[in-house]
Amino acid sequence: MKKEYFIGVDVGGTFTKAALVDQKGKVFSRIQVSSRGFSQKQYFARTLHDISLRLAAMAHVSFDEISAMGVGLPGPVDSEQGIILSLTNIKGWNHFHLAGFLKKYLPFPVYVDNDANCMALAESRLGAARGARFALCLTLGTGVGGALILDNDIYRGPFFLGGEIGHMPICVSGPRCECGGIGCLERYVGNQAIASRARRIFGKTVPLEEVSRLARRGHAKAQKVWQEAAACLAMSIAGIINVLGPQVVVIGGGVARAGVALLGPLRRRVRQHAMRHLKGKVRIVRAALGNDAGFLGAALLAKEKIGAR
Amino acid sequence: MKKEYFIGVDVGGTFTKAALVDQKGKVFSRIQVSSRGFSQKQYFARTLHDISLRLAAMAHVSFDEISAMGVGLPGPVDSEQGIILSLTNIKGWNHFHLAGFLKKYLPFPVYVDNDANCMALAESRLGAARGARFALCLTLGTGVGGALILDNDIYRGPFFLGGEIGHMPICVSGPRCECGGIGCLERYVGNQAIASRARRIFGKTVPLEEVSRLARRGHAKAQKVWQEAAACLAMSIAGIINVLGPQVVVIGGGVARAGVALLGPLRRRVRQHAMRHLKGKVRIVRAALGNDAGFLGAALLAKEKIGAR
Repeated sequence: MKKEYFIGVDVGGTFTKAALVDQKGKVFSRIQVSSRGFSQKQYFARTLHDISLRLAAMAHVSFDEISAMGVGLPGPVDSEQGIILSLTNIKGWNHFHLAGFLKKYLPFPVYVDNDANCMALAESRLGAARGARFALCLTLGTGVGGALILDNDIYRGPFFLGGEIGHMPICVSGPRCECGGIGCLERYVGNQAIASRARRIFGKTVPLEEVSRLARRGHAKAQKVWQEAAACLAMSIAGIINVLGPQVVVIGGGVARAGVALLGPLRRRVRQHAMRHLKGKVRIVRAALGNDAGFLGAALLAKEKIGAR
Repeated sequence: MKKEYFIGVDVGGTFTKAALVDQKGKVFSRIQVSSRGFSQKQYFARTLHDISLRLAAMAHVSFDEISAMGVGLPGPVDSEQGIILSLTNIKGWNHFHLAGFLKKYLPFPVYVDNDANCMALAESRLGAARGARFALCLTLGTGVGGALILDNDIYRGPFFLGGEIGHMPICVSGPRCECGGIGCLERYVGNQAIASRARRIFGKTVPLEEVSRLARRGHAKAQKVWQEAAACLAMSIAGIINVLGPQVVVIGGGVARAGVALLGPLRRRVRQHAMRHLKGKVRIVRAALGNDAGFLGAALLAKEKIGAR
């Protein structure tokens, strides 16, 4: 098998991570740059070109051995046409034909997708969902990102908004969400919601890392914080399980660092809500690839798009 | 195009409906028999043979012009192998290899699927979801049946339990459901739940048809019954919309006869919960094929399985 190289780029609001990987997902070089100035499209394009040169040089790979690039972005993307549908973190990129624009700057094809989709693809091919044809992947952080692998492929849906589990309503009324909905899961288990839950239960501000640490040691109030979050999460996850029957649910993101303090009550709650026929069949596990999942998935996207399986 | 004929059978707990249709879904003859005695497998097989002969004779079609038969059943089915996974209405059929068994009795191939999947297939090809590659179909009755059309095909999932929207939890605790879960949608909007909601609101027993009639005339209590049911339904439907982005949601079954008394508040509630990008894009409509959807879908399943598109 001829060696092929791909570049995976994970564009975040603050930092952008990139790596050069081979077709098996092995990382040969990696780099992190500031996302500042990316609202200037030319600057972004030149940065990608520059990153590619540097990644190739670092890995002692010739620039023309790079077959394709994948770019993950924090917003919905029409991945067929390579158009960013909306992006809140970087100004002026709504409805921007990124893949087409980059053609002028880069000698290899560029494929674009949502970052949660990239993360799910990486976990599906190399991580915690490996071997499962059907998987739900969540990233718990400031927001609640989600993506679905159905029949071994990213599910994008007709409007390229597939997998947005963070916007499943879990309350008939409930608070208004940025997405335009009300009562969304994200408003109950996002970073801020958990922090204010901790504040309510402890009667003072306690950092989430501390809440996790205390919960692991058996501290009742700390456990209550995670139990409440787990109860909310379980409703949406069990809803997806009963409707789509994924074989595995992968939980990633900063909030997942709570570990068993969150996963323990989450598994119990999901088992309560899941249909009898599914109770024992769906594993709920932590993500395996951490912060690398974004660029790895972007690189795998590029690989699979050009058909180099 | 050579004319081909298919038999669609919709096995219910009380009655079984069957029809002879052509590849376009045109009905040439139809029949209804009692489902009594179907726990005796030989009797069921002979009945299907007898039905086929009669349907052919009624339509003046030769028996050997029948290309295939589709059978819809009220329970989960491994439609690839033709195995009934579980069935509560007919005894002794759990894990029964129905398609294999019927080979001895019928000269044409038989394909088996869940009845909600058949209904969704019919609505997708000939009914209210025609033209939509992504659709959610619900049947509101004693239970809440559901099925998904994703990328123009029935979504079955790895465990053949796809689309069970009636078992999405809408409450963290809530009543225990027959499925083994708790707080399932079905427990809030099934026939009995709506009837007891009406009893609570009216202070006496009122038949659902009457509640619908009063609601259409503007009766406040009657409207409240449907508004509450709509609020529950909207949570699950909006959850599916935000995660899968179907282009159309089709509502069928006896409870859907409430018509605009239910659909009006349902559309408003779903619009509140749906993401901004999806609010205007998803139509919520009544099923178009009524009670015929079951056998039509079963016949279409058979047609599509043998590849006569």
